[in-house]
Amino acid sequence: MNMQMIDGGITAPKGFMAASHDAGIKKKEKKDMAMIYSAAPCHTAGTFTQNLVKAAPVKWDMQLIGSNEPGHAVIVNSGVANACTGQLGYTYCEDMAKETAKKLQIKPESVYVASTGVIGKQLPMDKILAGIDVLSTRLESGDEAAHNAARAIMTTDTHPKEAAVRFSIGGKEVTIGGMCKGSGMIHPNMCTMLSFLTTDLNITTELLREALLESVQDTYNMVSVDGDTSTNDSVIMLANGLAQNSVIMEKNEDYQTFLTALQLINENLAKKIAGDGEGATALFEVKVINASNKAQAKGLAMSIVSSSLTKAAIFGHDANWGRILCAMGYSGADFDPDLTDIYFESAAGRMKLVENGMATDYSEEEATKILSEPEVTVIADIKAGNVTAAAWGCDLTYDYVKINADYRS
Amino acid sequence: MNMQMIDGGITAPKGFMAASHDAGIKKKEKKDMAMIYSAAPCHTAGTFTQNLVKAAPVKWDMQLIGSNEPGHAVIVNSGVANACTGQLGYTYCEDMAKETAKKLQIKPESVYVASTGVIGKQLPMDKILAGIDVLSTRLESGDEAAHNAARAIMTTDTHPKEAAVRFSIGGKEVTIGGMCKGSGMIHPNMCTMLSFLTTDLNITTELLREALLESVQDTYNMVSVDGDTSTNDSVIMLANGLAQNSVIMEKNEDYQTFLTALQLINENLAKKIAGDGEGATALFEVKVINASNKAQAKGLAMSIVSSSLTKAAIFGHDANWGRILCAMGYSGADFDPDLTDIYFESAAGRMKLVENGMATDYSEEEATKILSEPEVTVIADIKAGNVTAAAWGCDLTYDYVKINADYRS
Repeated sequence: MNMQMIDGGITAPKGFMAASHDAGIKKKEKKDMAMIYSAAPCHTAGTFTQNLVKAAPVKWDMQLIGSNEPGHAVIVNSGVANACTGQLGYTYCEDMAKETAKKLQIKPESVYVASTGVIGKQLPMDKILAGIDVLSTRLESGDEAAHNAARAIMTTDTHPKEAAVRFSIGGKEVTIGGMCKGSGMIHPNMCTMLSFLTTDLNITTELLREALLESVQDTYNMVSVDGDTSTNDSVIMLANGLAQNSVIMEKNEDYQTFLTALQLINENLAKKIAGDGEGATALFEVKVINASNKAQAKGLAMSIVSSSLTKAAIFGHDANWGRILCAMGYSGADFDPDLTDIYFESAAGRMKLVENGMATDYSEEEATKILSEPEVTVIADIKAGNVTAAAWGCDLTYDYVKINADYRS
Repeated sequence: MNMQMIDGGITAPKGFMAASHDAGIKKKEKKDMAMIYSAAPCHTAGTFTQNLVKAAPVKWDMQLIGSNEPGHAVIVNSGVANACTGQLGYTYCEDMAKETAKKLQIKPESVYVASTGVIGKQLPMDKILAGIDVLSTRLESGDEAAHNAARAIMTTDTHPKEAAVRFSIGGKEVTIGGMCKGSGMIHPNMCTMLSFLTTDLNITTELLREALLESVQDTYNMVSVDGDTSTNDSVIMLANGLAQNSVIMEKNEDYQTFLTALQLINENLAKKIAGDGEGATALFEVKVINASNKAQAKGLAMSIVSSSLTKAAIFGHDANWGRILCAMGYSGADFDPDLTDIYFESAAGRMKLVENGMATDYSEEEATKILSEPEVTVIADIKAGNVTAAAWGCDLTYDYVKINADYRS
């Protein structure tokens, strides 16, 4: 299959433009608004937080997804989350969509809205509306516009997160682009962050949505930074069909190709979120192998990647495998600890620390070397079948505490 | 009802003795072994970790509870947990019981065993056996022996944890004493730590066990320090009947009095564990009030008290109530965010921050003052009924990370 990651982000597919702006929402002079636009109408898909407390833009977007109106644009602000803001917050969210629609001469129901930042504060609507006016005059194609938009949606992220993948369907070149942001309140139940995906693929709404849902389960939903599922989590995808492939209407080979590409870009973005978790010094990957079923494998992987004690040990480069086995034990998943092997793996090598539930005669020094890399993998072999699952997180550091003790100050 | 907390710990009830010793298990010269003994045979009750990975002593103790053999003694070591140590670890645990039995001239099946410390390391049995010999010659009644025993079971605890309560049943003075230790791997599913309770109450085994189980649900099981349920969690209770009250054989008024006393001491110990969580600067109490049922109230309280983001905000004395509402939202419990009020309370005062899901016009300065006390309470009023639940934890600090990044070094 001819499929490759390419440079670029949300403007990589044909017909998508982006804009960004420093509207003055954040205290410091930083970009804090972004806009995505496709003149061609888009099929849309979205998955949203399962938190009972949903931010206003999540409510707005869920309603749009329900309406089947074609999508044209996304308007995003960072700095204020517009969550726990009551009826007024919802009206402000509608006003963001209306102002964007007016400027772009589309319907408000074609405009998806996302906000990220502090909970419980109302949006500074004067700045937001002025920002939308500026953004609508700055829409551009090209990698730089995408990159600046990815920068504008950051909160405590330390760097922008983008990815793009290109492949061919029926002889036509198809591209998926994406950008996302973390990096606190990151824990599954849907998507755990903001992620925006664009594609020029020609596909029905139903299959676009099905593919996105399936892909989210194994990617964003397998990321945990701190166990807190946000009020604002959203993955929104727009597909404008400009690749001109014959429309995908059934789960044929073309659909599978698209799903593989979507998986590739979502796993890439999910790992970027995990590795840039608040205060993180390392991407912490967990693979559970030889499980008897997917639920068991995922349950064990998420329990390990979410364990504060394990995450602190990763930060300390300490091969404290007992905490890993302990986290598996309280996961709720059934498995046999006395059959379990545990490995550490990184660019510095691979080592078996536990065999059948007990320590091997491993070298602590070498284990520490493996754990000192910026990407560390724990592999748990439970010898129960042949199913595998992966989860991604990060280490627990002083800086996580610092960032979250001071966030609003 | 005449019921009061008194000084002392496990030796406060009639007929209980304790001993402690520095056996050299820990690297530094610190007490690391303790023994509890009653010459009079005891009814026993115990509740243990629900982690699938159970330490050897947990397996031993669960078997004893099953056997209905009268209890006489508890032998405990700190420094090494005897978890993930295979068949050899279990044999070592048996050897601890046998050596204790030999020295005290009782059956091995009368000796409960507990270990706490690093997972995956075998016990240094030469030191342990020599330690048991010393302990058996040092058994004493009196507060000092109890206090030193409480000190000997500490790991990362910063201070020993004891409590005792005295009340009367049928004109007889009855006492319950207890000691426990935290302070990492603390999260419900059973009891989340080691706790040892002694009483001179005369009660049937069945009712003793029922009372302990009931009390554990609302006390130890409502504590979370870090979300990690340990492999070694145990609450063990011995009742020797020396108070000479007529035996409690049914759930009458005497049983209720006992249950109230047990609740008092267990809540006291549970709060001590929470307040001394690894690296903690504050005891963090959460009360959910006006819930429609207990499961809802407990689910919401545990979700708030376990939220890393909320805990970091408590550390920073930051009134970030959005994180509290967010944690309620992802708890899985059904409630109406738009009806919810949130209060902060401490020795410095009480303040309503949220009314019907939105911020009140509160003073950040005053909120910070309330949050700067060593004991801080969050009250969430969900206006759905009249059921209340409490949960206890602590703030998330730099020192939690430091302790757990370096634990084995």
